[in-house]
Amino acid sequence: MSDAKRSDLTRGILFTDEYQLTMAQVYYRLGLAEKPALFEHFYRHNPDYGQHQAGYCIFAGLDPLLSWMQEERLDEDELEALRSQKSRSGKPLFDRDFLEYLRRHGSFEGLSLKAIAEGRVVHPYVPLAMIEGPLLQAQLLETILLNRLNFETLIATKASRVREAAGKSTVLDFGIRRAAGEAGNAATRACLIGGADRSSNVGMSHVLGLQAAGTHAHSLVQAFMALGMSELEAFRAFAEVYPDDTVLLVDTVDVLESGIPNAIQVFEELKRKGHQPVGIRLDSGDLAYLSIRAAQMLDKAGFPETAIVLSSELDELVIWQIHTQIRQEAPRYGVDADSLINRLVFGVGTRMVTSWGQPALGGVYKLVAVYDGGSWKPAIKVSESIEKILNPGQKRAWRIYDDRGLASADYLTLAEEDPRTEPTIILRHPTDPGKQRRLKQNQCTFELLHEEVFRGKRLFDPVPLEVLRQRRKADVERLDPGVRRLVNPHEYHVSLSPRLWTLKTQMVEGLNPNRL
Amino acid sequence: MSDAKRSDLTRGILFTDEYQLTMAQVYYRLGLAEKPALFEHFYRHNPDYGQHQAGYCIFAGLDPLLSWMQEERLDEDELEALRSQKSRSGKPLFDRDFLEYLRRHGSFEGLSLKAIAEGRVVHPYVPLAMIEGPLLQAQLLETILLNRLNFETLIATKASRVREAAGKSTVLDFGIRRAAGEAGNAATRACLIGGADRSSNVGMSHVLGLQAAGTHAHSLVQAFMALGMSELEAFRAFAEVYPDDTVLLVDTVDVLESGIPNAIQVFEELKRKGHQPVGIRLDSGDLAYLSIRAAQMLDKAGFPETAIVLSSELDELVIWQIHTQIRQEAPRYGVDADSLINRLVFGVGTRMVTSWGQPALGGVYKLVAVYDGGSWKPAIKVSESIEKILNPGQKRAWRIYDDRGLASADYLTLAEEDPRTEPTIILRHPTDPGKQRRLKQNQCTFELLHEEVFRGKRLFDPVPLEVLRQRRKADVERLDPGVRRLVNPHEYHVSLSPRLWTLKTQMVEGLNPNRL
Repeated sequence: MSDAKRSDLTRGILFTDEYQLTMAQVYYRLGLAEKPALFEHFYRHNPDYGQHQAGYCIFAGLDPLLSWMQEERLDEDELEALRSQKSRSGKPLFDRDFLEYLRRHGSFEGLSLKAIAEGRVVHPYVPLAMIEGPLLQAQLLETILLNRLNFETLIATKASRVREAAGKSTVLDFGIRRAAGEAGNAATRACLIGGADRSSNVGMSHVLGLQAAGTHAHSLVQAFMALGMSELEAFRAFAEVYPDDTVLLVDTVDVLESGIPNAIQVFEELKRKGHQPVGIRLDSGDLAYLSIRAAQMLDKAGFPETAIVLSSELDELVIWQIHTQIRQEAPRYGVDADSLINRLVFGVGTRMVTSWGQPALGGVYKLVAVYDGGSWKPAIKVSESIEKILNPGQKRAWRIYDDRGLASADYLTLAEEDPRTEPTIILRHPTDPGKQRRLKQNQCTFELLHEEVFRGKRLFDPVPLEVLRQRRKADVERLDPGVRRLVNPHEYHVSLSPRLWTLKTQMVEGLNPNRL
Repeated sequence: MSDAKRSDLTRGILFTDEYQLTMAQVYYRLGLAEKPALFEHFYRHNPDYGQHQAGYCIFAGLDPLLSWMQEERLDEDELEALRSQKSRSGKPLFDRDFLEYLRRHGSFEGLSLKAIAEGRVVHPYVPLAMIEGPLLQAQLLETILLNRLNFETLIATKASRVREAAGKSTVLDFGIRRAAGEAGNAATRACLIGGADRSSNVGMSHVLGLQAAGTHAHSLVQAFMALGMSELEAFRAFAEVYPDDTVLLVDTVDVLESGIPNAIQVFEELKRKGHQPVGIRLDSGDLAYLSIRAAQMLDKAGFPETAIVLSSELDELVIWQIHTQIRQEAPRYGVDADSLINRLVFGVGTRMVTSWGQPALGGVYKLVAVYDGGSWKPAIKVSESIEKILNPGQKRAWRIYDDRGLASADYLTLAEEDPRTEPTIILRHPTDPGKQRRLKQNQCTFELLHEEVFRGKRLFDPVPLEVLRQRRKADVERLDPGVRRLVNPHEYHVSLSPRLWTLKTQMVEGLNPNRL
């Protein structure tokens, strides 16, 4: 088998868990494969990074998933791979008639997917996506959907926190080398949705319509020095090739004694030739202190505009600490803290693209209803913890804004309910019956959160990155500052309508209204 | 641009950091592009997961990287993407002659790569790979090499720890849904190298020649119940389709009151028809307690052989705890602890495929020498921390075994040194001059760790998974038990030869023997 073919098998519908296929055959054999089913994708907890926690998530990964769903169907090679699977009895695990069925129906043609718009702020328990269609196809979507949506949402959320911490400083994604293998591309996309201004990832930046960002590595200076030349000569060579794009890495030898003085000398040469030097980069040491000293030296030399790029194990807390230290210390060196912060560029890598502290979002994909006998029958899983019990049935989700225009709660109702017609809104915590709140209708504006985005095929063209970024920005700005803060955020209210609450408790008490 | 084309651009050589390309143009412009250079890939610290730490790593990811290196070269679309990049001046960032050079030389044809064999135990500071060849090509390999080798090594290491904790229990990789997007495939491969017996990932298992593992999900039981049927009917339906492969998930309703009794009933029906039931799965609750109770009930019903599959947020510490609790508690229930442990199957997901606790390995790719004037000139980077200072120059790495056949140290020497000819071996800690040890030649056996695996193309066919797994197993068994333990492991000794130590200290003191 050629390598290309081998890798194809791992990127299509067989990028799934074995049990999706074994269940599919059961559904097929029992005539349930085309029973309409409703699944929901949601997560239960915002990321907790240890000593700091997210108060919200940024939904990402939807657009690539929809493209994948539209293009994929089980092909001959994939069916052949399934045909080769053996039961413990030695017979084929999958029967010929079932594989024939998969040849015709092994795709996502029958599915409808309603989702919250990509780039938006999302909260626990509120479905990010609701999938309706033939039981077999909907089940077959589970693994890839979780894989794609959980990961990009996790990374976009981390990037949004980095963005919040960085304030007016620029943020660059430098993470591709430390990202999880091929997921480096999805990580780049998620970082750019979540708050990074640009990325060093060349291919993905190009595809997304951005210019990739970059400077040079220590190896450039090292190579020059190993060849008997100097740091200054390395800087000069770089500046000659990129006279209008010169960013110099100043910590290969000694930042204050060698790197910055050499950079200033090269900047002066550029200036004399009519070029504008762009900046320096610091990749080690006390970044707050060194950036103050760098600003001081660059200001004195007549380069108050050049950027100061910082990199090396950054995350939202380190950036927050750097800003804080600069505000406290810069004045002592005659450096204006705000100007310095404005010229800072944070190159954030490992800790953003891996969501350091919590490297997975526990999003789940759960069956909530099956259509039978002319109506939707709610489904529930009664496991041991009340928190894990599903919100059953067909639902709608609303975001409620207060009279200041801030989002005050997300509200889950039955599909046929319209809270805009209720005089008073009673909010019930999804897992804690003790928590209730009341809102008057005239204090509220309602927004329906889901839109159908796929019905056998994508219903919309891919959304430009810039639109996704604007959605994120607008939504974050409509959050209470307490929900936005980096440490110990307020819990945003997610609530069930009284009717949904009643359905859920009835089902839990009776295990199932239909039959056990 | 079609989606296929768009994704191609992100999977080839442009899966890289921008600065690799900007530096490449500098090297080209200065006539340095083809200067022979030597880079090393190594990491400085074994993963630290917080309250537990790795004492070694398992090297993985090499084979897919070599295939990629052999196939990739910059094509017309990729060059076009580079051509479209603009300087801040508005002019093209990359000149036509440079792009023409890349068209001819934008590949890895000129490189030689020496590496430790994939699957082997590796340690900090010892190069996992040494790359020699034209400076431009070697630099262009950095990002992808770090991305691929660091990630798979990280995950294989975690899997090896899970394997160590699981002892005689089986380990299944269930992680694909929670893995980082497309890296789910690389994670599966790394888990299988590192210690998982099988994986639920259908496509990747097939490509690696294994049968994928799987049971069914809660949704199967839920769907039946929503349709007015029972858990028992769901189990029976599954068993009818898979009479020789029946594993039943018993915690959708209530494990002890409903799930296990229903499973036993179906197992009895299977047995009467001459089939052997395979097992049950528990996915929530107190897994140690429930597995003891399950064993008790299954034993009593005459099914002492059926497997008990455990899943739900497992990692090496949770598995260790489950084993410990079983050894303490099982006898109270009349269950033999060893027999129970032998029938346990751990389905490990999120925490294995994300290396929970430390989601990135900080491997680096550093220039260590440049060939000039008839000899290799060592390169060094003098940054602020002694620990980060490179071991310069061309080197060899040896593993030293003691007279019991256990690995006692890895030993880095200059390329021309042969420690087998020295009467006494002096081991020096790579960063701490105070740490020294002496070994007598007659107490030691030496193994040279690196082999050339790529010279313009792969020099070997891909290594079968089973060979990689055997390498891991053999190497782990040759470690001191203190290095293998899960918490607070012994530090394995990695040492520099006196001549390498002297070269390094001379370079640090003089900054560079050539010229500053």
